[in-house]
Amino acid sequence: MKVGFIGLGNMGTGMARNLIKAGHEVTVYNRTRSRAEELQQEGALAADTPAEASHGEVVITMLADDHAVEQIVFGAGGSEGVLSVLDSKSIHISMSTIGVALSDRLAAAHASKRTAYVAAPVFGRPAAAEAAQLAIIAAGPADALERCRPLFDAMGQRTFIVGEKPSSANLLKLIGNFMIASAIETLGEAFALGRKGGLDPALLLEVLTGTIFPAPVYKNYGGMIARQEFEPAGFKLPLGLKDVRLVMAAAESLNVPLPVASLVRDHFITALARGWEEKDWSAVSVVSAEAAGL
Amino acid sequence: MKVGFIGLGNMGTGMARNLIKAGHEVTVYNRTRSRAEELQQEGALAADTPAEASHGEVVITMLADDHAVEQIVFGAGGSEGVLSVLDSKSIHISMSTIGVALSDRLAAAHASKRTAYVAAPVFGRPAAAEAAQLAIIAAGPADALERCRPLFDAMGQRTFIVGEKPSSANLLKLIGNFMIASAIETLGEAFALGRKGGLDPALLLEVLTGTIFPAPVYKNYGGMIARQEFEPAGFKLPLGLKDVRLVMAAAESLNVPLPVASLVRDHFITALARGWEEKDWSAVSVVSAEAAGL
Amino acid sequence: MKVGFIGLGNMGTGMARNLIKAGHEVTVYNRTRSRAEELQQEGALAADTPAEASHGEVVITMLADDHAVEQIVFGAGGSEGVLSVLDSKSIHISMSTIGVALSDRLAAAHASKRTAYVAAPVFGRPAAAEAAQLAIIAAGPADALERCRPLFDAMGQRTFIVGEKPSSANLLKLIGNFMIASAIETLGEAFALGRKGGLDPALLLEVLTGTIFPAPVYKNYGGMIARQEFEPAGFKLPLGLKDVRLVMAAAESLNVPLPVASLVRDHFITALARGWEEKDWSAVSVVSAEAAGL
Amino acid sequence: MKVGFIGLGNMGTGMARNLIKAGHEVTVYNRTRSRAEELQQEGALAADTPAEASHGEVVITMLADDHAVEQIVFGAGGSEGVLSVLDSKSIHISMSTIGVALSDRLAAAHASKRTAYVAAPVFGRPAAAEAAQLAIIAAGPADALERCRPLFDAMGQRTFIVGEKPSSANLLKLIGNFMIASAIETLGEAFALGRKGGLDPALLLEVLTGTIFPAPVYKNYGGMIARQEFEPAGFKLPLGLKDVRLVMAAAESLNVPLPVASLVRDHFITALARGWEEKDWSAVSVVSAEAAGL
Repeated sequence: MKVGFIGLGNMGTGMARNLIKAGHEVTVYNRTRSRAEELQQEGALAADTPAEASHGEVVITMLADDHAVEQIVFGAGGSEGVLSVLDSKSIHISMSTIGVALSDRLAAAHASKRTAYVAAPVFGRPAAAEAAQLAIIAAGPADALERCRPLFDAMGQRTFIVGEKPSSANLLKLIGNFMIASAIETLGEAFALGRKGGLDPALLLEVLTGTIFPAPVYKNYGGMIARQEFEPAGFKLPLGLKDVRLVMAAAESLNVPLPVASLVRDHFITALARGWEEKDWSAVSVVSAEAAGL
Repeated sequence: MKVGFIGLGNMGTGMARNLIKAGHEVTVYNRTRSRAEELQQEGALAADTPAEASHGEVVITMLADDHAVEQIVFGAGGSEGVLSVLDSKSIHISMSTIGVALSDRLAAAHASKRTAYVAAPVFGRPAAAEAAQLAIIAAGPADALERCRPLFDAMGQRTFIVGEKPSSANLLKLIGNFMIASAIETLGEAFALGRKGGLDPALLLEVLTGTIFPAPVYKNYGGMIARQEFEPAGFKLPLGLKDVRLVMAAAESLNVPLPVASLVRDHFITALARGWEEKDWSAVSVVSAEAAGL
Repeated sequence: MKVGFIGLGNMGTGMARNLIKAGHEVTVYNRTRSRAEELQQEGALAADTPAEASHGEVVITMLADDHAVEQIVFGAGGSEGVLSVLDSKSIHISMSTIGVALSDRLAAAHASKRTAYVAAPVFGRPAAAEAAQLAIIAAGPADALERCRPLFDAMGQRTFIVGEKPSSANLLKLIGNFMIASAIETLGEAFALGRKGGLDPALLLEVLTGTIFPAPVYKNYGGMIARQEFEPAGFKLPLGLKDVRLVMAAAESLNVPLPVASLVRDHFITALARGWEEKDWSAVSVVSAEAAGL
Repeated sequence: MKVGFIGLGNMGTGMARNLIKAGHEVTVYNRTRSRAEELQQEGALAADTPAEASHGEVVITMLADDHAVEQIVFGAGGSEGVLSVLDSKSIHISMSTIGVALSDRLAAAHASKRTAYVAAPVFGRPAAAEAAQLAIIAAGPADALERCRPLFDAMGQRTFIVGEKPSSANLLKLIGNFMIASAIETLGEAFALGRKGGLDPALLLEVLTGTIFPAPVYKNYGGMIARQEFEPAGFKLPLGLKDVRLVMAAAESLNVPLPVASLVRDHFITALARGWEEKDWSAVSVVSAEAAGL
């Protein structure tokens, strides 16, 4: 398939590479061109503008945040957006973690241009992206999803189809990130109590993940918290706060309070007030440790 | 080994049975005698008083709450307590979920009588108790733990040794229950948002437990929350609140705030104000659903 | 003084009237013209557009929310904004409760046009506006504030000068509203407890406001909560939520967590999920009453 | 009247003195005798034991906490309690801030001995106690209250009668202290935001207390927070936490969640984890300041 791929960050690079490996004809675009050149050596074409990457059957966006997606899709600063050059037969797959409101706006914009829009955010860290082990959460028109299937298969180990409404996939993804953030917060409080009570953090981690919580989230973040090692960051604190903000915004528009999210948000803000923006989001646990006098 | 077993509730019955199966000479005591008679048929001796069950090498308590343990161990209403009849060579293993302060009091009382005290609370539901699949969290004097080993092996699939201080095992157990309660609260908020946003609860559960949260806690409680089925209760709401209270008390005595526990506590209280004391503790999720207007 | 007054809501009408009474030459503008005509009979001129009301020495905006201020000041839908017609000698006084970020944007926009900008939000309900009893919180360039003094004197009983930076007045006003919202939340919890404990709400109110809390906020809102009367609304729930959101946004941009605000926000959201958007913001107390099973 | 007065702390000394001044025959008891001797010079008799002070028509207890009241009333360590020597015509007035559960226990104990029990906690600081300016919140049998009237008049400026059930006065008092604690917490968050936003704390205080919050609670604690002066303590942090704990216990027994109290409690715990047990309870505001990176 002829595919455009916009956004070669920690996640996007591995995803684009897996599309190339699977034999697709991939045109990549990245704001800083060096990353595109790296993939050029592996068989990609490099586009100079987002629009140039949008002439295939599918264009994928995998960008840092809502703002970047808006600029790329709708255009900004005189540069044409993806939307303006898309063919009526082509599909835009938005794979980054964006807000429900923006996803709804994208859906409306695509509908008015009669182009297809699929939301397909992913669970998985950069290593999973590289290894084509992502879990893909996809929603959109059934025929478009069908056509995207080979691409999903090339990038992920499993695809979940949420339904016809694209933003429902974004909502589900945000719910997942909210739950990870909550688990991190809980681990932070648990380890603060454990340490103050004289428990060996490594043993506490071993028991928790060896009995009731044998899940990667608890192992990875629990390990970082037990060792008090938050750098290098797998997922930086400000990104964590951004996602909590997005889930709270989605919830607020549906009149759903999320008190755990409110609490996590407040602790992320304290973490930023401490100057920890370069640390992994599991460093929010240090807020709990400090609140306990550690 | 000659073992007394006091407390034949949902958990204790299976545990005592596994001791009998493993060939130990078990004397059981339960406040309502019928449960003891059931085990008598399987080879147990039935004691008429706690004291009568305390003449072996080891006496195990597996009781409903701190109050019951206090009464059984220290005696109450004219009835002799376990402590008063224990031999200096015998060991008391306290296996129910009790508070850190009570465990410390038990340790002090045993020390002054020169009897051995081991705390060994467990993770696992009644089915796991029946199947000898419990995880046992044990702490106490090393030699006493060594002598208890065959009993632990008969009741559980794995034993974690926390250290010499008995109450550290209780603290660890309470931290685990706090984390389960937090996971339930988070699931409750997540499903309230998902349902209000139009997500199919079964699909939401499938994605969460099929990707980032492949842990029994999420599967079991998530399933109950997705199906809105909270009866019959596996673990009743008031017991959940009791454990949250115990972890908060332990934390308070160490000057550790646990804001997630505070929030969970408040929601449990609302659940009780709704009259849900017979429901499973995962019914606390309905508080979040109602707060969202569901 | 020649004054334009834009926004004749519950607050603005009384404020504009007091300017007329004080002998100022007032040109009023309101989106729905009937309100302007009422004041015309009292001596005001009625403008057809915001721009038309902006040719005096001072133009005052007293509008519903940030969005309305943006549209009026920067123009929208082909209509000229206040900013485009302001004279370099004229002053814009923004008196409604707006966000800190918008106030900073207004300050920057005025600075680049070399027009003067003063922020002067107020404390007081419509009756106080009518009676010229408002408390005015003003910030801006000292000379502009000096020139505004007669207008402030005509509308309020007291003016507090916060400093040179206009948005500092907005921040202070938002902090005040946050504190009122917190007092309402606290009253809601207090009365829920009191009622469940059998205290007469009227007596509880009498004691609280007759001893430690002899302040209008406690008397007014406490009275509504004690009587469970939330209509007609003095200040509607969605406006309360809007202000809490604005203070949280201001706080977040300064990396300040406000856990009480987070909690209040969550309860406002539940109140909206209950469909109480027409009720007074003190109806948020019913969320606490319901959480207690009342 | 012949009155016993037990507990000559910061509050009790002034209260007992005002009874003497009003011409009552006062026998005082205090654990450390020096305080009693001081009042002896002003006309009091000094008792060697609580029982000795309990032979008049009325005995008043004004003690540090529930534990002290229990010991004094029920006896402890071989010493006779007030209850055992009370005459069937005499009245026990419990004036310190105690829990609802203990007040109910006292009521039951008195009922079974056919002695009268009145709960009459007070609002006011030591200076108000000294100046006979306390507000007294009284509940108990109507005839007993009537007989206590002259004593209340001698100690306070106003007495509120809550009803027949003594513990309802304690509940009301605890609700008041919860509301003060909440106001302090809110002030702490407000000043953290104000300071970070560049507002002068003294001005912020002036505006708040000069407009919407002209109440002593806001002036006193707001002043301490604005000046960051928390010593000498008017009311120490651990006492604040104790009262929050008592109101939460009362609320829990009625199935009432108090989320603001939970939050305040968590912040008090952090304050103690910081080692601030000698500071005024308004020092809890520093927790908010630190959380904001100040």
